[in-house]
Amino acid sequence: MTGTVTPIKITTKEVANDFLNRYDTFLFDCDGVLWLGNILLPHTKEFLDTLTSLGKKAIFVTNNSTKSRLSYTKKFASFGITVKEEQIFTSGYASAIYVRDFLKLQPGKDKVWVFGESGISEELNKMGYEALGGDDPRLQTPFDASTSPFLVNGLDEDVRAVIAGLDHDITYHKLAVTLQYLQQEDKVHFVGTNVDSTFPQKGHTFPGAGSMVESIAFSAGRRPAYCGKPNMNMLNTIVSAFNLDKSKCCMVGDRLNTDMKFGVEGKLGGTLLVLSGIETEERALEVSEEHVNPKFFAEKLGDIYELTQQ
Amino acid sequence: MTGTVTPIKITTKEVANDFLNRYDTFLFDCDGVLWLGNILLPHTKEFLDTLTSLGKKAIFVTNNSTKSRLSYTKKFASFGITVKEEQIFTSGYASAIYVRDFLKLQPGKDKVWVFGESGISEELNKMGYEALGGDDPRLQTPFDASTSPFLVNGLDEDVRAVIAGLDHDITYHKLAVTLQYLQQEDKVHFVGTNVDSTFPQKGHTFPGAGSMVESIAFSAGRRPAYCGKPNMNMLNTIVSAFNLDKSKCCMVGDRLNTDMKFGVEGKLGGTLLVLSGIETEERALEVSEEHVNPKFFAEKLGDIYELTQQ
Repeated sequence: MTGTVTPIKITTKEVANDFLNRYDTFLFDCDGVLWLGNILLPHTKEFLDTLTSLGKKAIFVTNNSTKSRLSYTKKFASFGITVKEEQIFTSGYASAIYVRDFLKLQPGKDKVWVFGESGISEELNKMGYEALGGDDPRLQTPFDASTSPFLVNGLDEDVRAVIAGLDHDITYHKLAVTLQYLQQEDKVHFVGTNVDSTFPQKGHTFPGAGSMVESIAFSAGRRPAYCGKPNMNMLNTIVSAFNLDKSKCCMVGDRLNTDMKFGVEGKLGGTLLVLSGIETEERALEVSEEHVNPKFFAEKLGDIYELTQQ
Repeated sequence: MTGTVTPIKITTKEVANDFLNRYDTFLFDCDGVLWLGNILLPHTKEFLDTLTSLGKKAIFVTNNSTKSRLSYTKKFASFGITVKEEQIFTSGYASAIYVRDFLKLQPGKDKVWVFGESGISEELNKMGYEALGGDDPRLQTPFDASTSPFLVNGLDEDVRAVIAGLDHDITYHKLAVTLQYLQQEDKVHFVGTNVDSTFPQKGHTFPGAGSMVESIAFSAGRRPAYCGKPNMNMLNTIVSAFNLDKSKCCMVGDRLNTDMKFGVEGKLGGTLLVLSGIETEERALEVSEEHVNPKFFAEKLGDIYELTQQ
């Protein structure tokens, strides 16, 4: 039994102010925390404005690899919230950083095969890498090993990594060609954007990036390097990009097993779980070996703003 | 160290005749043994004719669930080989038998959701089950939780099992709806046609049924009951259908980890590995905890016919 501290529920003005005073940087998961799909949660904008007025930093950290950081700034803008591209970290961006800084692939020379959506390819292109696969329309045609344009002339010899993530346009053609690259075990690295098996949407739970990456891993007989939360690659990148003091950082999210784990294992000063996503108060308080506990929790992010206004 | 007997390579007329005399029933894997894709291997027909002339029984056992048994008889016919539907066992058929005889689903009332090709649905229909999903063209449209015809009016309440197998027309829409059925854990059983992670074709190795079933299993957080080789469900069904004496049966195949394992674990009298598929002589002889060894092996099935003609 480790010395577990009971999570504090933020329900009074005093606790809300204490929470805000403890940290100077807040890392936010987005879906389930700031919004649900296309609906902004109440008082999200006001909460973020409060942080700005207090001189605090906000960073947005999402395992969604389908959108690029630039696309994310547009999503924020659609809610009337101004956010700079530099404040956003997606798992697709984290994967591209991994390829550049850890695998040391050479921009302009080495190429990356993408199983996933434009949020991965766009970040790679911005770093100077040619991204193959992805949303190439030829991958939407029925697969035939004898005629596939990706196989008839052999694989592209410059491909040195596969990045795999969630792909709503999954086809057998994509799976088959991706596998051919991964069979070059000594040459081609295997990167997964994030391990999430599912994600919530409109009251349902749908297959997530992890379910596709694990399918590819099973056929290839290889394990990927996962880049999104709760992997520390992502946190280390953020800490170093902003030269952060981790003890003054708080991770805010709606999932115990990714967001809260990310904050706890990353040794951030604090964690805040919001119950507007997939977790319950019972789970937040439950002491279990299967998940960590947050330092603070609240029904929703806007509650903290509302309490400070009392 | 168990008392391993060195596999015997069939290279003389005497060994070939001894092999044929030992057994009265031969269970054949098809692709890699009888043919490679659309090319019949040399002297396959003559070998099968020899068995018939000796009064031996031939049964064909394939993990390919994309074709029904009826379709398989047509494939044999295209090579000039006459085979009855009753002689063929596919993993799709084995899965349908599992649903009928083990899960005891009621034909005409209970329904099955199929993630896979027509080889599964056709066998279910023949047993009187309504099969949903499968090659329904609406599953080829982009997925939207708000408009999917499979979700807007709720799930079909009569679905009591999901059968998942290889699907060359995999889409996110199929994955998403399949997951919704599997979330009904207390009501809907989960059956996988076969665990093969890949299959060989035209000099390549492509994603197999197992890679899709494992993707679905990962998102659902559930394990399937696998029906194809090397699962004993399939062997038990065959043995009981023909009232076979297992000691007089020989499994013939091209894979150590499915076909040979199937024969050894099923306690059949013998096993024959042919090297016309994916295995090598080195692997056939290698003593390893990772795979079983065959009792006999040969370069190709037709060799045995050729040797008997000397």
